[in-house]
Amino acid sequence: MSASQKIKVAVLGASGYTGADLVRLAACHPQIEIVALAAKTHAGQAMAEVFPHLGLVGAPDLVDAGEVDWSACDAVVCGLPHRAAHEIIAGLPDRLKVIDMSADFRLRDPEVYATWYGEAHGAPYLLETAVYGLTEHYREAIRSARLVACPGCYPTAALLALLPLVKAGVIDASDIIIDAKSGVSGAGRALKQNVLFTEAGEGLSPYAVAAHRHAPEIEQELSKAAGKELVVNFTPHLVPMSRGELLTCYVRLANGASVGALREALAADYRDAAFVHLTPQGMVPATQHVRGSNYCLIGVFEDRVPGRAIVISTLDNLVKGSAGQALQNFNLMFDLPETTGLEQKPLFP
Amino acid sequence: MSASQKIKVAVLGASGYTGADLVRLAACHPQIEIVALAAKTHAGQAMAEVFPHLGLVGAPDLVDAGEVDWSACDAVVCGLPHRAAHEIIAGLPDRLKVIDMSADFRLRDPEVYATWYGEAHGAPYLLETAVYGLTEHYREAIRSARLVACPGCYPTAALLALLPLVKAGVIDASDIIIDAKSGVSGAGRALKQNVLFTEAGEGLSPYAVAAHRHAPEIEQELSKAAGKELVVNFTPHLVPMSRGELLTCYVRLANGASVGALREALAADYRDAAFVHLTPQGMVPATQHVRGSNYCLIGVFEDRVPGRAIVISTLDNLVKGSAGQALQNFNLMFDLPETTGLEQKPLFP
Amino acid sequence: MSASQKIKVAVLGASGYTGADLVRLAACHPQIEIVALAAKTHAGQAMAEVFPHLGLVGAPDLVDAGEVDWSACDAVVCGLPHRAAHEIIAGLPDRLKVIDMSADFRLRDPEVYATWYGEAHGAPYLLETAVYGLTEHYREAIRSARLVACPGCYPTAALLALLPLVKAGVIDASDIIIDAKSGVSGAGRALKQNVLFTEAGEGLSPYAVAAHRHAPEIEQELSKAAGKELVVNFTPHLVPMSRGELLTCYVRLANGASVGALREALAADYRDAAFVHLTPQGMVPATQHVRGSNYCLIGVFEDRVPGRAIVISTLDNLVKGSAGQALQNFNLMFDLPETTGLEQKPLFP
Amino acid sequence: MSASQKIKVAVLGASGYTGADLVRLAACHPQIEIVALAAKTHAGQAMAEVFPHLGLVGAPDLVDAGEVDWSACDAVVCGLPHRAAHEIIAGLPDRLKVIDMSADFRLRDPEVYATWYGEAHGAPYLLETAVYGLTEHYREAIRSARLVACPGCYPTAALLALLPLVKAGVIDASDIIIDAKSGVSGAGRALKQNVLFTEAGEGLSPYAVAAHRHAPEIEQELSKAAGKELVVNFTPHLVPMSRGELLTCYVRLANGASVGALREALAADYRDAAFVHLTPQGMVPATQHVRGSNYCLIGVFEDRVPGRAIVISTLDNLVKGSAGQALQNFNLMFDLPETTGLEQKPLFP
Repeated sequence: MSASQKIKVAVLGASGYTGADLVRLAACHPQIEIVALAAKTHAGQAMAEVFPHLGLVGAPDLVDAGEVDWSACDAVVCGLPHRAAHEIIAGLPDRLKVIDMSADFRLRDPEVYATWYGEAHGAPYLLETAVYGLTEHYREAIRSARLVACPGCYPTAALLALLPLVKAGVIDASDIIIDAKSGVSGAGRALKQNVLFTEAGEGLSPYAVAAHRHAPEIEQELSKAAGKELVVNFTPHLVPMSRGELLTCYVRLANGASVGALREALAADYRDAAFVHLTPQGMVPATQHVRGSNYCLIGVFEDRVPGRAIVISTLDNLVKGSAGQALQNFNLMFDLPETTGLEQKPLFP
Repeated sequence: MSASQKIKVAVLGASGYTGADLVRLAACHPQIEIVALAAKTHAGQAMAEVFPHLGLVGAPDLVDAGEVDWSACDAVVCGLPHRAAHEIIAGLPDRLKVIDMSADFRLRDPEVYATWYGEAHGAPYLLETAVYGLTEHYREAIRSARLVACPGCYPTAALLALLPLVKAGVIDASDIIIDAKSGVSGAGRALKQNVLFTEAGEGLSPYAVAAHRHAPEIEQELSKAAGKELVVNFTPHLVPMSRGELLTCYVRLANGASVGALREALAADYRDAAFVHLTPQGMVPATQHVRGSNYCLIGVFEDRVPGRAIVISTLDNLVKGSAGQALQNFNLMFDLPETTGLEQKPLFP
Repeated sequence: MSASQKIKVAVLGASGYTGADLVRLAACHPQIEIVALAAKTHAGQAMAEVFPHLGLVGAPDLVDAGEVDWSACDAVVCGLPHRAAHEIIAGLPDRLKVIDMSADFRLRDPEVYATWYGEAHGAPYLLETAVYGLTEHYREAIRSARLVACPGCYPTAALLALLPLVKAGVIDASDIIIDAKSGVSGAGRALKQNVLFTEAGEGLSPYAVAAHRHAPEIEQELSKAAGKELVVNFTPHLVPMSRGELLTCYVRLANGASVGALREALAADYRDAAFVHLTPQGMVPATQHVRGSNYCLIGVFEDRVPGRAIVISTLDNLVKGSAGQALQNFNLMFDLPETTGLEQKPLFP
Repeated sequence: MSASQKIKVAVLGASGYTGADLVRLAACHPQIEIVALAAKTHAGQAMAEVFPHLGLVGAPDLVDAGEVDWSACDAVVCGLPHRAAHEIIAGLPDRLKVIDMSADFRLRDPEVYATWYGEAHGAPYLLETAVYGLTEHYREAIRSARLVACPGCYPTAALLALLPLVKAGVIDASDIIIDAKSGVSGAGRALKQNVLFTEAGEGLSPYAVAAHRHAPEIEQELSKAAGKELVVNFTPHLVPMSRGELLTCYVRLANGASVGALREALAADYRDAAFVHLTPQGMVPATQHVRGSNYCLIGVFEDRVPGRAIVISTLDNLVKGSAGQALQNFNLMFDLPETTGLEQKPLFP
């Protein structure tokens, strides 16, 4: 395949961590040519100035999104903040396939969006066509989608672990507690005091207790699977590491179900999945096992409390939790093997 | 008070982190004179060789425990591993007051000890006189005790948060989930692969899932308070930081109780406590707030799930979770102000 | 001494790390009463909101510096940024003793200040009376000073190691290379991209290569000792740790001098020093040995290159490199024992 | 190319970090089939047990080196400790190409080896045919070699920066100071107290001052280039990060040479190099820019001290400093494009 046959991609929000990780992965994707990198405040700069680790990738200089020649693009991957994302996406030509890593098209209900994001959605009509990009669970819809809304990092880890259990009816969907731990890159590259090295280092801090925007997203999908409105506990914690996310989910077994039934439900759903894997019995997932890769590992453990189980899910928030899953969806949308460009193994130590 | 009037203390297990932190704190305690430091493998070495940060403390050289002249001591603080602890303590003269930081005298029931520690307790008769050293809850018994069994670091953080709630009957004691996060020093100074910098760094890993020895200790005390046998979920995680511990406890409100009632129960129990504090509403406890100090901070939050609450407890595992609490108990046993030598403020950043 | 007899201190720049560490240390200083905490952007807030780890110190709320009642103060410790510092200090009543932790009064020559700090000094007349607060080398002048300019953190570590060697003539003062490594707190609490956890974590980066403002300060003092103008190499590196600073100094032995002569020069100068110590032969200083304490450790090593030696110096940049040395100077200025309030031992691990 | 046409590789020492990183990289190398993984103490285990992050690579189980069927191999990559390496390599069939990542064949002179490694070399005859695997400087010899001795991580970073300068005669080869900083993985996976998270975290410590085994290796190559025996200062420091290495080299300009001449010498030598790059003027190399990749970045800076310059070199110690360079050499030895399997971009943050 010659360079001219490659799929031409513009990346919006290329000065953020998810945008940068998309560029990193795309550099090893044999069918992608990055034709434009856009970023508001860094327009005019070389990528090497903004992200020195990408200085040797051969990427184009950053421009303002308004300067991108959409006619030269086949697809757009958007790593913009919410609201900025839907404003730009609403104006893109219909022929462009769009993979959105922002929060703007994840929630189906504009009112829920307004409640959690503080203002009305500016392009509610697009919500109707957007497909929720949780690859392993919406594979067919993604193949034919024009606009894919990639899930948040936490919802990806939570839903990959819990959706098969709720669907199979092996846990009590009304009693789900999710204790989430994330590396600092989940907060993005914006300057905030709590993510300074001196503030986040050598310490662990819960945040957004009972108030995180990923909760309604998790609830939307679990409720759909359960066939009733659910509310889950979701409590995130900031961990002194750059990448990685691990969720410890405390669940109650449904009447009669065993921990083995949980393992079976997960194994069945991910039998052919390239990136989502149940860990062997007794092996505890850890973020170190997936860093830099597109894997999600899930472990199931019997609790000492009778009738309860612990389900642990881990992934790299910037890869399977963001840019990697975006690329996985891109592959489906362009009829490429799902794993193309995503075969890098985890980096450890 | 002249030097000769100081209380003479021997520290056993001085080559471990809890022993070293006891020495660090004791160096600023105006009534303590360290007269002996014992450690098996390091006998014969200067403290500066074993712990260079204590090179300027003026501590005696390490000796084998068998060489300590007990007649020159008033008290013994023991930081030995379990089993080693009770073997030595059983042979100490009765006149010595003993503050044990090991696990050997925490569990009241020798059978529970045998189950969790893998062999029969060697001095069960001592269990009868040992007082559980959770200072704020056993203050009077500690004052007159000869042998105090300081709680484990996790039980300290768990019980300080949960005992007042169970006692007050404001939570459902049969539905308690404790998601625990600890810095690496909790594993001690022994050489184990999982605590290498390269293994524990930049990553988060659950461990001892549904199998940690601190669970029965937590259950012993909560069961006593509840008046019935309880089993709790207790799931620890290893966090890439050296010190600090934070527990996120998920509880169900008892019939009719409000989140305010939880705050009131805690405020009432710790009204006069120097080291245990309820955080102001909305302020989330973090390990950074207590590092190096003897404080334990507790926060209470309403869950989005109706009828549930989140109780967060944090402390420095080597101070309030070990050597600090040991010194606090020492102060009580020797009729000194409880805060003597423990007034250092948290070190941040 | 009753509370009313305590020395009344105002801290300016209390929302920065050096200001906060001054408050932390002062809280354990028996003769200090903090009567005012000033900070521009945080005026009106409680200290607990700005620094939760100081929430239990009992400090006054933050105010604007303009609101401080100077008549109620005996001394001012200033942790403001440069320029802001001399503007405020110039307006303080003469009777107030001033300990300045900023860079504004360190350089004797206003032209050097203008060159390195980008604009003319606003109070050059004060430079004449300011005493350079390198305690161990200017002890007598500090005792009677009204205004003490505490050295920068790097100059403190560099000069404590090198001044005795230059004074004794045992090294070639014209061939000094200082490779400096610092924790991230040295950059302060201001929001800058390079000090985000995600940027500084898991990495090491040189910065301000051949362009750091602490170089002229080091040169000023070494030149004075050498009796001729010196230029030194000074190359700082940012290390993924919060506190601590270590300088590896590469020096050429003066004609005929041995490495032993270097050790002797240092031992002689610090024979009676409480906080500056030569390490025993073969023991390599590390930042872990001094964290949180006012110690500076210095080690001397023979190089494999004939005629050369390596001198290693380490301290905690926020303590001996800033707030601790400020308090040490405060003690001298108020005729208190030099070690008062500074006896905390290093925190490790 | 079918699987049967792949080059069959055995990895010795697969339970160490360099062995594991070789497996990680080889998993994405289109022409490599790993046919055997050997490791002494872990023989019989699955790779997933030893390195969970490689659980999905599909690697064979670990065996004892004695069990490897050499007739089924085309090449051996050896990640064993020194001494163990040459004992095994001496017994390998001649037809096998050997890429050795140990220290055993780096030093040309068996007496130097004996001095620094504590005992006589067991296979000095092999030293004569071994080629020093510093790819960019020995490319042609490596192509036709049977046994390649990959340089140590520090020598790789040092020599890539300094060899072109010494060869071009633009620096004074007799006055070279190398201040080296390394992440903890450089110490390997063996259990040692100083590399525990609690010991190495939040701190910086020099080690092996004037006594590191990589010094004679650096001197061997620089001396050869200079045409005279050189001794260099080489002082390593342990940095609290897992991967990455950065060397700050302090050099004196040769008579008449300018800093520009240094840049030119480096640019000339690496004009066509895929992995070694001079940074644009003013851009300071940092380990964050190369993590996980096979890049080495070199920056040159004018010192404030007249006649001196600072040369900074950085790489990932496990990749370009070990497994990556080994694979690069493998590619040359098997006539493959030098970059095959090494095109992964740096992982940041």
